[in-house]
Amino acid sequence: MSNSGYRVAIVGATGAVGVLMREIIEERNFPVRSLRLLASSRSVDKTFQFHGDAVAVEELNETSFEGIDYVFSSAGGSISKQFLPHAVKAGAVCVDNTSAFRMDPNVPLVVPEVNPEAAFKHQGIIANPNCSTIQMVVVLKPLHDLAKIRRVVVSTYQGVSGAGAQAMAEAREQIAAALNGESFDSKKFLHPIAFNCIPQIPHGAGSSPFNADGYSEEEVKMIKETVKILGDPSVRVTATTVRVPVLVGHSESVNIQTETKLTAAEARLALSKAPGITVVDDPANGQYPLPIHAAGKDDTFVGRIREDHSADNALNLWIVADNLRKGAALNSVQIAELLVA
Amino acid sequence: MSNSGYRVAIVGATGAVGVLMREIIEERNFPVRSLRLLASSRSVDKTFQFHGDAVAVEELNETSFEGIDYVFSSAGGSISKQFLPHAVKAGAVCVDNTSAFRMDPNVPLVVPEVNPEAAFKHQGIIANPNCSTIQMVVVLKPLHDLAKIRRVVVSTYQGVSGAGAQAMAEAREQIAAALNGESFDSKKFLHPIAFNCIPQIPHGAGSSPFNADGYSEEEVKMIKETVKILGDPSVRVTATTVRVPVLVGHSESVNIQTETKLTAAEARLALSKAPGITVVDDPANGQYPLPIHAAGKDDTFVGRIREDHSADNALNLWIVADNLRKGAALNSVQIAELLVA
Repeated sequence: MSNSGYRVAIVGATGAVGVLMREIIEERNFPVRSLRLLASSRSVDKTFQFHGDAVAVEELNETSFEGIDYVFSSAGGSISKQFLPHAVKAGAVCVDNTSAFRMDPNVPLVVPEVNPEAAFKHQGIIANPNCSTIQMVVVLKPLHDLAKIRRVVVSTYQGVSGAGAQAMAEAREQIAAALNGESFDSKKFLHPIAFNCIPQIPHGAGSSPFNADGYSEEEVKMIKETVKILGDPSVRVTATTVRVPVLVGHSESVNIQTETKLTAAEARLALSKAPGITVVDDPANGQYPLPIHAAGKDDTFVGRIREDHSADNALNLWIVADNLRKGAALNSVQIAELLVA
Repeated sequence: MSNSGYRVAIVGATGAVGVLMREIIEERNFPVRSLRLLASSRSVDKTFQFHGDAVAVEELNETSFEGIDYVFSSAGGSISKQFLPHAVKAGAVCVDNTSAFRMDPNVPLVVPEVNPEAAFKHQGIIANPNCSTIQMVVVLKPLHDLAKIRRVVVSTYQGVSGAGAQAMAEAREQIAAALNGESFDSKKFLHPIAFNCIPQIPHGAGSSPFNADGYSEEEVKMIKETVKILGDPSVRVTATTVRVPVLVGHSESVNIQTETKLTAAEARLALSKAPGITVVDDPANGQYPLPIHAAGKDDTFVGRIREDHSADNALNLWIVADNLRKGAALNSVQIAELLVA
């Protein structure tokens, strides 16, 4: 830490994303003068290293934000709803990685590669989009600019880390038990995730129900957030979101239809020039994005770029990213970087 | 075995599908007078039980089919191409579970729930479709009859058993090693399958390349076989096929567009009355098809039936089946049942 820079607070500092936020703030040298790690009372005995200093976790309360410039929040929607208004009142700018404010018309929903200008229109809170949405719109944006996307059909293959650190641990335990032919419990998951695909996200015991049309919360997020981030209500999206036995990394099979024709070669070229994207597309040599390769990386990976002959002006894409980094912590830090640039 | 019934041979009798063919022939009481189990020379010391008798494996050769009425073949395309013409010459009818003859215009490609009439037009060989295709067309057929399907966009989540018994064993070994933080080899898989999604099927070391448009063999099968089985070249299909760390069971996220409007309720009703289908569609109570539930079952399971508002007359579906049973061995036996009925 230095004497210049900003006074930063992380809400949910002990969770999978909160921990990564601290690490990414450090590794990208975000200018920090002081760091406050906030969590629930049961974490107050913990300390974490930051640029060589030990920082103790403090209990989150309404007065935690005095003198804070930037808040990164990732402790669940109800925590953000309760506490971020106090942070805003105290003068902080909040980057919120929950769904609490994403669809609020007064809150920008920002992916820096896609709609950086929106970040500057904030009224104290900027929302970080859903993980599955972020990696998809990073890839959609350059194609939308070129050929105007009319329709998106996406099916996801989402890693268990998206459900949190405890879900990751349970997945490992379940899979080990299943391999040994032992029985196991599902506490974090409504159904076993071992050797299974669960077409419901979120799918904890206390998950919210599906909407009247039968769409899960995650599917509704992908449908609505994509339109808000692209800033074009004429883009129509449908989604099927599925949890798979992968630890880190979300994969997406994405079919797009565009107003004007885009060849696979044109799409590949545009994507290879776009920020935040690595094109991995040499299938004949076994080269395409894989979640085990994307884990721990910052970029969004795209490959299997193919013209789809089942419709005019259609393409298939395979998009993979680290859901904890670009899908959450990294994107949040990148939003704050826009503001301090 | 009885004194009436048919003289049956299974080619590839020691493989995952061949073993299941023998079991399903027994469990469904297909009328068998004699059973010949054929495989390569390295399996000739094996014996299997059939209706209480021990049947020894014999080495497959060109004269194996003398006096045989029905052949079930599942030992790979090159074996079928080499040996089935000899079986036909010897007077046998062959149900072939390889891709060798599927797109041959003189060979019917049959799913009994969809196009049973095609089976009777055979010239000695009837092809059993690709596993992913079978479960999809079982569900598409009643919807096509109701509202005429114009376009299908499918993304698959395919279990490793589709790659054979050795691939299943390697997947288990890899996953156990990965859980323990140990290194492991990929012999059957081009990339590790542990905690990964591989958007290439087939993906063995010696897999055939992608076509000029970038589609894998499995994707081309789904696109072409669907049209042949439905008997309607106006149905346009695109596919992305992906291997996931599931042992048995293929799942599919399927988006269809129809000529006339079909509500989710109308689709659900039609599917609930259709043969070979179980509708599992109460997502609010966590009820939808899961591969761990479909494994070992005969039916194709469908749920998550939703109207898709991104296009006129569109629906999303989630389709799951046991790829070894309905996707291979069961469908083959059902084809033979049509002929002997």
